[in-house]
Amino acid sequence: MKLTYNKSHVSEREIVAIGEQLSPYAEHLKEVLQHGYEDEESSINLPGDKELMESVGAAVRDKNTTSLKYILVIGIGGSNLGTKSIYDALYGRFDILEPSRMPKMVFLDTIDPAFLSHMESFFDKEITNEEEIVINVVSKGGRTTETIVNAELVLGTLRRKFPGILDRLVVTTDFGSLLWKMAEEQDITRLPIPQKVGGRYSVLSAVGLFPLAKAGVNVIALLSGAQKMRDRCLSLDIRENPAMVSAAVLFENFRMGKTINDNFIFHPELESLGKWYRQLLGESIGKEHDRDMKVVRIGITPTVSIGSTDLHSVGQLYLGGPEDKLTTFISAEFNKRGNAITPEVFAGAEEGIAGKKPADVAEAILKGVKIAYEKKGLPFMEVLLPDITPASLGAFMQWKMMEMMYLGELFNVNPFDQPNVESYKTETKSILNS
Amino acid sequence: MKLTYNKSHVSEREIVAIGEQLSPYAEHLKEVLQHGYEDEESSINLPGDKELMESVGAAVRDKNTTSLKYILVIGIGGSNLGTKSIYDALYGRFDILEPSRMPKMVFLDTIDPAFLSHMESFFDKEITNEEEIVINVVSKGGRTTETIVNAELVLGTLRRKFPGILDRLVVTTDFGSLLWKMAEEQDITRLPIPQKVGGRYSVLSAVGLFPLAKAGVNVIALLSGAQKMRDRCLSLDIRENPAMVSAAVLFENFRMGKTINDNFIFHPELESLGKWYRQLLGESIGKEHDRDMKVVRIGITPTVSIGSTDLHSVGQLYLGGPEDKLTTFISAEFNKRGNAITPEVFAGAEEGIAGKKPADVAEAILKGVKIAYEKKGLPFMEVLLPDITPASLGAFMQWKMMEMMYLGELFNVNPFDQPNVESYKTETKSILNS
Repeated sequence: MKLTYNKSHVSEREIVAIGEQLSPYAEHLKEVLQHGYEDEESSINLPGDKELMESVGAAVRDKNTTSLKYILVIGIGGSNLGTKSIYDALYGRFDILEPSRMPKMVFLDTIDPAFLSHMESFFDKEITNEEEIVINVVSKGGRTTETIVNAELVLGTLRRKFPGILDRLVVTTDFGSLLWKMAEEQDITRLPIPQKVGGRYSVLSAVGLFPLAKAGVNVIALLSGAQKMRDRCLSLDIRENPAMVSAAVLFENFRMGKTINDNFIFHPELESLGKWYRQLLGESIGKEHDRDMKVVRIGITPTVSIGSTDLHSVGQLYLGGPEDKLTTFISAEFNKRGNAITPEVFAGAEEGIAGKKPADVAEAILKGVKIAYEKKGLPFMEVLLPDITPASLGAFMQWKMMEMMYLGELFNVNPFDQPNVESYKTETKSILNS
Repeated sequence: MKLTYNKSHVSEREIVAIGEQLSPYAEHLKEVLQHGYEDEESSINLPGDKELMESVGAAVRDKNTTSLKYILVIGIGGSNLGTKSIYDALYGRFDILEPSRMPKMVFLDTIDPAFLSHMESFFDKEITNEEEIVINVVSKGGRTTETIVNAELVLGTLRRKFPGILDRLVVTTDFGSLLWKMAEEQDITRLPIPQKVGGRYSVLSAVGLFPLAKAGVNVIALLSGAQKMRDRCLSLDIRENPAMVSAAVLFENFRMGKTINDNFIFHPELESLGKWYRQLLGESIGKEHDRDMKVVRIGITPTVSIGSTDLHSVGQLYLGGPEDKLTTFISAEFNKRGNAITPEVFAGAEEGIAGKKPADVAEAILKGVKIAYEKKGLPFMEVLLPDITPASLGAFMQWKMMEMMYLGELFNVNPFDQPNVESYKTETKSILNS
């Protein structure tokens, strides 16, 4: 993965100064490596956790069948966004073109009466045998309203058809939570989330690993890509540490009035990865109070744009409108296989495309956009992935999770909590119980 | 459709004052009704255009087969976002649960080498007869790079397998464009877009009507919902005119520093509708110059959030972070059919859900969020649709398109152009031709 910041309006001198400021925290992170799951930052110990791999591997084997068609993931927020990122990048985006490729992953997050009612006939028509489905209920604290409601509805419906359906269920939750205990009493397969690993940092725990491994994703490569990136992001020298660099660029741009970070991704299959990052940045840095409990109402609003699609949508706003955005252009080396373009039906409608591969045109658009941004004086970083594989996705996600930890230092906020979310939950519970 | 603005921080007195300011423009819009497609605002004449319905109807009948499986829409931005909104709301969101429901719509917008390579095997495996597919190439000006490239690649591949594939093609473009002429020479079915109807205002033209009608959408209801809303949005009295009201709320909140408009939609099947609005607001109001050619760099950044999903993602930022957002809560009456919740497997994990319908819980969450926003002093409007049907979707979209016209007046910008988009196209073309 290559990160370039020379058009970010942040100088190397400023980057180096921030590196010096962050270096004691990098020292602290190195110590976290020795402490298992004791620290708030302990998600960095997930890659390389052999016990985790063994417990996930055992659950994967336990649910092995030759006829698996659907993996149903019931979870919301940090409990499904990471899994969906990787599934969509590798498979999900192409599901519509591959009706017979199995297994497919189906996600149930919010309470969606319309989707649930379609799901009833889906179970009737598409699932003829319980071995065709695996259900993964994921809730860190074990008391997420949406997840419990969806799980009860799905399991209730399936149980009438398949009395033994609980054998096809895996519950992923904090060790010892109420949900854990309920699953234990009913002999339901359980996978633990370490208590100090928060939802938005949990993709490399059993939360992501179990459903992804079931879907055929090489989770060993995912973790090893993450582990290599983690080691880079522990470097005390900011020039070797991409998480420090991107945190510095986001922070300095925020101080220059760039309150929005647009993640402009030039591969539609990475849209869900953008949404995963949206939670990560939104929840980690969007805060009412800083670490000294001073009211700050601070945060960077993350947005996700897809290239070149959104050039035909919000491109006008980005190029002509308010200068309140730092853009992160995200792309992977384009796949150069496939046919060259031979204009035939509409020859002459568009010049310059004959003999080019689709990848050449996609690259020219991305380059053209970057030149247009530069000419307008709009700041951006560039991220280039070598490819879209589990290893690259693992590296990207590990980088971004550690970027948050450094950003928390720079903004003086706690990147691990989300206290304001409680407010609507309290109101909702009071309505439900009234 | 019901629009409520009493928590928007804009008083009725201010609303009425803006209504007086906008009323001459409403007079102008009434005159546009008499002028066919002569004016910039002439998209408001699409509902009720009998000739349009006849030409679309003829093309639909011409491409009728009993074995249609896929409608392939090749277009980008204004050429597919409206179609995708309606398809996804009614069908697309449920595609994964209904593998055998046909026809399905497949969208090809950006140049996506990975998707294109999957598409080749898709044609091989899934299309055994040309009657199983209809292709709709949509490009207003007829020279959109992505669309021409995608069309050539798809038609090239399909033609080798089905020599008569051009009979299954419909080209939607400006009457008389180069693309129109090329299609005419090859006797390809053509549907015109009125020249003064811009891409983001074109969903109710042949751009949306043809593919949607092919997919089985009741386009008569779509248009009639739009027509009724159009008539409301021509009222000189702002109290009767939802487009004036929402324009006033957006404008006044912008003046109070709310530079982001978050469209918080509580039905996941309406996510694409949110993305359609994102183009509409982003491109129409995001401007470098005002109508007097003064540099203004103005605009509202539209974002789309999905409830309750994104409460578990960016909810923390929204409730705790910077106060730079006006929220539009969008929901439809929840479907109350379906089973009540009977806690069984995880009884006691979540109180207050037993005996409730999923719709009751979804409603309680939405209510809870609104109370939490109000307690934090965050401004919002509320839109309640009676249901998610073609008529309601047509009404919503017509409302929003007319909102833009009024907003253009308030911001003193041209809501029909997108001059800055040219900059990256110029750079791209120069790279492709070098």
